[in-house]
Amino acid sequence: MRAARLHEYTDDMTQGLSIDEIEKPQVTRSDGVVVAVEGAGWCQTDNHIIEGMWEQYVPQPLPMTLGHENAGTVIETGEEVGLVEEGDQVICHPVQTCGTCRPCRQGETMYCENDAFNGLTTDGGFADELLTSERAVIPLPDGVDPADIAPHADAGITAYHAAKKAVDGLNPGDAAVVIGIGGLGHIGLQCLNEMSAADLVAVDIKESARQLADDLGAHYTIDPQSEDVADVVSDITDGVGAAQVLDFVGADETTALAPDICAAGGDHHIIGYGGHIHEPAQALVNGEFAFQGNIVGRYAELQELVALVEREAVDLHTTRYDLDAVNEVAEKLEHGEIDGRAVITP
Amino acid sequence: MRAARLHEYTDDMTQGLSIDEIEKPQVTRSDGVVVAVEGAGWCQTDNHIIEGMWEQYVPQPLPMTLGHENAGTVIETGEEVGLVEEGDQVICHPVQTCGTCRPCRQGETMYCENDAFNGLTTDGGFADELLTSERAVIPLPDGVDPADIAPHADAGITAYHAAKKAVDGLNPGDAAVVIGIGGLGHIGLQCLNEMSAADLVAVDIKESARQLADDLGAHYTIDPQSEDVADVVSDITDGVGAAQVLDFVGADETTALAPDICAAGGDHHIIGYGGHIHEPAQALVNGEFAFQGNIVGRYAELQELVALVEREAVDLHTTRYDLDAVNEVAEKLEHGEIDGRAVITP
Amino acid sequence: MRAARLHEYTDDMTQGLSIDEIEKPQVTRSDGVVVAVEGAGWCQTDNHIIEGMWEQYVPQPLPMTLGHENAGTVIETGEEVGLVEEGDQVICHPVQTCGTCRPCRQGETMYCENDAFNGLTTDGGFADELLTSERAVIPLPDGVDPADIAPHADAGITAYHAAKKAVDGLNPGDAAVVIGIGGLGHIGLQCLNEMSAADLVAVDIKESARQLADDLGAHYTIDPQSEDVADVVSDITDGVGAAQVLDFVGADETTALAPDICAAGGDHHIIGYGGHIHEPAQALVNGEFAFQGNIVGRYAELQELVALVEREAVDLHTTRYDLDAVNEVAEKLEHGEIDGRAVITP
Amino acid sequence: MRAARLHEYTDDMTQGLSIDEIEKPQVTRSDGVVVAVEGAGWCQTDNHIIEGMWEQYVPQPLPMTLGHENAGTVIETGEEVGLVEEGDQVICHPVQTCGTCRPCRQGETMYCENDAFNGLTTDGGFADELLTSERAVIPLPDGVDPADIAPHADAGITAYHAAKKAVDGLNPGDAAVVIGIGGLGHIGLQCLNEMSAADLVAVDIKESARQLADDLGAHYTIDPQSEDVADVVSDITDGVGAAQVLDFVGADETTALAPDICAAGGDHHIIGYGGHIHEPAQALVNGEFAFQGNIVGRYAELQELVALVEREAVDLHTTRYDLDAVNEVAEKLEHGEIDGRAVITP
Ligand SMILES: [Zn+2]
Ligand SMILES: [Zn+2]
Ligand SMILES: [Zn+2]
Ligand SMILES: [Zn+2]
Ligand SMILES: [Zn+2]
Ligand SMILES: [Zn+2]
Ligand SMILES: [Zn+2]
Ligand SMILES: [Zn+2]
Ligand SMILES: [Zn+2]
Ligand SMILES: [Zn+2]
Repeated sequence: MRAARLHEYTDDMTQGLSIDEIEKPQVTRSDGVVVAVEGAGWCQTDNHIIEGMWEQYVPQPLPMTLGHENAGTVIETGEEVGLVEEGDQVICHPVQTCGTCRPCRQGETMYCENDAFNGLTTDGGFADELLTSERAVIPLPDGVDPADIAPHADAGITAYHAAKKAVDGLNPGDAAVVIGIGGLGHIGLQCLNEMSAADLVAVDIKESARQLADDLGAHYTIDPQSEDVADVVSDITDGVGAAQVLDFVGADETTALAPDICAAGGDHHIIGYGGHIHEPAQALVNGEFAFQGNIVGRYAELQELVALVEREAVDLHTTRYDLDAVNEVAEKLEHGEIDGRAVITP
Repeated sequence: MRAARLHEYTDDMTQGLSIDEIEKPQVTRSDGVVVAVEGAGWCQTDNHIIEGMWEQYVPQPLPMTLGHENAGTVIETGEEVGLVEEGDQVICHPVQTCGTCRPCRQGETMYCENDAFNGLTTDGGFADELLTSERAVIPLPDGVDPADIAPHADAGITAYHAAKKAVDGLNPGDAAVVIGIGGLGHIGLQCLNEMSAADLVAVDIKESARQLADDLGAHYTIDPQSEDVADVVSDITDGVGAAQVLDFVGADETTALAPDICAAGGDHHIIGYGGHIHEPAQALVNGEFAFQGNIVGRYAELQELVALVEREAVDLHTTRYDLDAVNEVAEKLEHGEIDGRAVITP
Repeated sequence: MRAARLHEYTDDMTQGLSIDEIEKPQVTRSDGVVVAVEGAGWCQTDNHIIEGMWEQYVPQPLPMTLGHENAGTVIETGEEVGLVEEGDQVICHPVQTCGTCRPCRQGETMYCENDAFNGLTTDGGFADELLTSERAVIPLPDGVDPADIAPHADAGITAYHAAKKAVDGLNPGDAAVVIGIGGLGHIGLQCLNEMSAADLVAVDIKESARQLADDLGAHYTIDPQSEDVADVVSDITDGVGAAQVLDFVGADETTALAPDICAAGGDHHIIGYGGHIHEPAQALVNGEFAFQGNIVGRYAELQELVALVEREAVDLHTTRYDLDAVNEVAEKLEHGEIDGRAVITP
Repeated sequence: MRAARLHEYTDDMTQGLSIDEIEKPQVTRSDGVVVAVEGAGWCQTDNHIIEGMWEQYVPQPLPMTLGHENAGTVIETGEEVGLVEEGDQVICHPVQTCGTCRPCRQGETMYCENDAFNGLTTDGGFADELLTSERAVIPLPDGVDPADIAPHADAGITAYHAAKKAVDGLNPGDAAVVIGIGGLGHIGLQCLNEMSAADLVAVDIKESARQLADDLGAHYTIDPQSEDVADVVSDITDGVGAAQVLDFVGADETTALAPDICAAGGDHHIIGYGGHIHEPAQALVNGEFAFQGNIVGRYAELQELVALVEREAVDLHTTRYDLDAVNEVAEKLEHGEIDGRAVITP
């Protein structure tokens, strides 16, 4: 079968992956599941993987097929699989978990001590077929196209995961600031809107992104290049600050906003990454806020997000590309030329 | 009456405060309460106030009487006060709150929008008498000496507040790391011990502090000068990390431990301050931990801490000094020569 | 001034209250507030008070002016009141709280140990003027008519309070069952809709109530007279049951549904009352559900509900009546002839 | 091998089970685990099963080997088992779970939709060997004797589970009432003591049980036959009531205490069963308390309880009996003649 594989790290996105002809994956365990991939979202993280940015954090055997946002149709199952059968359409949580370590037993599947991460530590879905496991697939509701929902497998649940945590701290009348209305941020904004009655404040330097936020239900938008974010948030909240901040950018300038825009007792959620946090400890003491890290959402959260998709509460803009366009997609993303989310359709 | 007052900021602790003869405070509101001070704890924060470190954060009208950890006997009450009467012994929460703003209504009294902070924004308790209000006093149980309990009014509740938050994230078998077993840390350690079944790991460079931790119930102690903290925590926790970290130091080196010692989903609580947090956003994403700021505990938490004191669950080592020894105390503290907590007894 | 007062308990609603000419209330404490009443909701509880059903629970000095759902304009304030001033429009939380007991300090104002309850333990708002206190009034947003919002002071916050608790247990894809789409239930349904992404299932014997539920966003409606509620809930939830049940009826038949419709780990919230709970302890053990009692919402929750009203998220149907129509209203309510909520406009 | 099996329901405990010679269990799935049973606690529930009290709640294929509180040594494992190997000592959670249903994915293993319950719905541990699965076993710490810890597999985690929930609602100074200091209650009391700083009030009609409570750290004991429980609780709590009540009896008389001993906002936990709850809905509304059902603790909670046992925080009194003494044990338990917990050692 065809697979888009990384052979060595490079900063040149025009030749990051090569389309190889490799053996089809085989089910070797009782809980194995092979999925014919119909959609595989391309993610900023894929660019980062190609650049080698994750090499220090996780084991990466090269060559490796990338692609962690996958959906498709089950074509083979291990002998003890009961959740799905051949022909079922599924979305694939990117993490294959063991089910027996303590985090798995607590439902904290992202902390699994024996996991494999599609397209990050094991072969992913930029290929005709993907080998995963029963504990990583979720059957799709009728009428949902795998290629449409695929990016929710990572972009979606990461945004949902942070939004769900934030909702716990949001009462009606409180404000939530969403920084960065891109691939993840525009999903997070919709999740907040659906699950809380907070006033939503969208911050983005791009006019089109602010317009999108407005369309998706933001109550206020701020252009940080022409407005002082802290001043506007203070005005909106009568000086109280935002009970929750979701930072989908994670740059030096956005994390630096925390002491000035977070309400006492609030959280500045770090979802995007790239920059640093640099604050005096006294600022956190004085304002009693937190910098809260956020990883990909757990399996049960992907079930919940699928339920949101089923009730049409979360719009996701996608554009489809053939498998052999992967490097073109990477290059376009590098230059901000991807409209919505790119989905590879092998 | 006599009062130890700050007239101008200085780095010279030998002459920070002067003992002035000033007018006794008068009750002017219906909820006013005047307390004859019998004990007023001296705090590192008092040194910082003298140095001017808080000038940028809060309004400070000088000259001002310092002292925010006060206890004594009620000698006058406003006409609508019902909670206490003349002759009652009380501990004074340092913050006088309005009772009508939204934070006050939510029980978040530390976020009161109309507060006055004894010895920080208004005259405090290094004086014969202190003017405070009904909403800031808590009657003492029988047999508790005001001079013994006074430091709990700030040092105690700050440690208790952080420990209480941490306890929410501690199951039996989890580890909690306490960094800095000083004035606050040794209280925090005892609170954790009383309210959780976590394995307690105390970190301090001083041998005497580690010995104290051991006496107070720590299950492990670490000397960060001769041991690698992250390695030891990893060994103790089978590689999982500490579910909760309470950082009573807040220096660059202690906040930098977070990514290496915090378990996934855990919190690194900032209580001490002085240094900075400096981390890549990616570290928080990858480990899904939080830097959680912690302010002084709220009024209801001081009630809870008084209940702990009443059941003799929290030891507090104090040494008493006369009012005219305030500068001597400040100077000694600056050089680490105060054993336990200094309490001024006007 | 005129006041509709209860002189003795009676089952005859046609002569429950008499319109008396009494002295205007005077501010006697520093925090007193007198409100010119512009709207006072009539509540099923008023009928119950007239019948003497609350005599055993609370002290009721007769004669007493009824009316606990009040809104209007401030016309006099005690000398230390800072939150409002003459001319401000306010909604009145029915409970005047002390602000100094431990529950008040925790924000649990409904558990105040020194409270007075308008129209239940002290004179209420079926009168030209109402004496209340600073801690019981909330300024209204511009453009909100006191007579429109008045019933939220009890009916609204009781429904909101239960809905807010329920929301903590509702993930997208979960079901919430709302039993009784009347005065409180139709508010609770809207609050659930605004603050969660749960599937909402409305149960009511009246076709018009089910229609209203449908209009307000219910995803399913059940007629318990022609359908088996447990069967339908089981079908909707694939046999899992409802994560949360809000029982605004509280009759024997509705509480008896709990073991059959509540999901494991769920709650059957008791808001309406009148009937009994009668279940074997084994049923609660086997299903691990709770019967959760719900009282009126606290002050901070009324602030949050006002924020929901301001964003037009909660519709409330009201019909206005003159003060001298109180007995007519009581009689009509007894016979189910009040459309929406009756508001007395003195 | 030998197995103590139930062939038909009976009220005659002298002949409830028969010792049969049956086939040894075989591993048939990849995750199967066979344990040589070294200890199997006998539980009141075993008597109830023999009486047929569970027939209506769960499927029970007869004949069936009873015994749900098991510990021993692994003697065979399925080919994909990684958590344990032959020779490992383990305690067996009574519920074998699927790991793929949504409750399992959330960590709510007691709500597994595809479970088997040792000795209740499938063969249990009153036998030489027990067939269970990888997801149901927990390796024992060094030095823990399986026969000593076995009853924790049900009695222990049920008490722990309820205590852990209660701890969330217990601040220092709050009171917790524990009703029934028997097999479960004396464990629950110790868990509360270890994990909270609440004042513990033990209620039991037996003097020896109250003495045990006293030894285990109860701050107060009440004899309900000579004292008015509500009066004493009111005295202890200054009229506030107990923040949490753990009812290990679940009789009509104990559930009836709730409105009189539960503080506003508190919970009356139902753990024991046998009687009914019978209360007016108005009582729950007025007091805003809950009747909270409690099932057996989940797998992760058994891990936590094992951690408590390892730190010697929970004493458990056991008496050992041979396998052929099962009916003698049942008969003795029926007459209250078992001292501590009976453990069958096949
Ligand atoms: Zn991604
Ligand atoms: Zn795992
Ligand atoms: Zn930096
Ligand atoms: Zn201090
Ligand atoms: Zn305030
Ligand atoms: Zn009402
Ligand atoms: Zn109060
Ligand atoms: Zn049992
Ligand atoms: Zn399951
Ligand atoms: Zn009954």
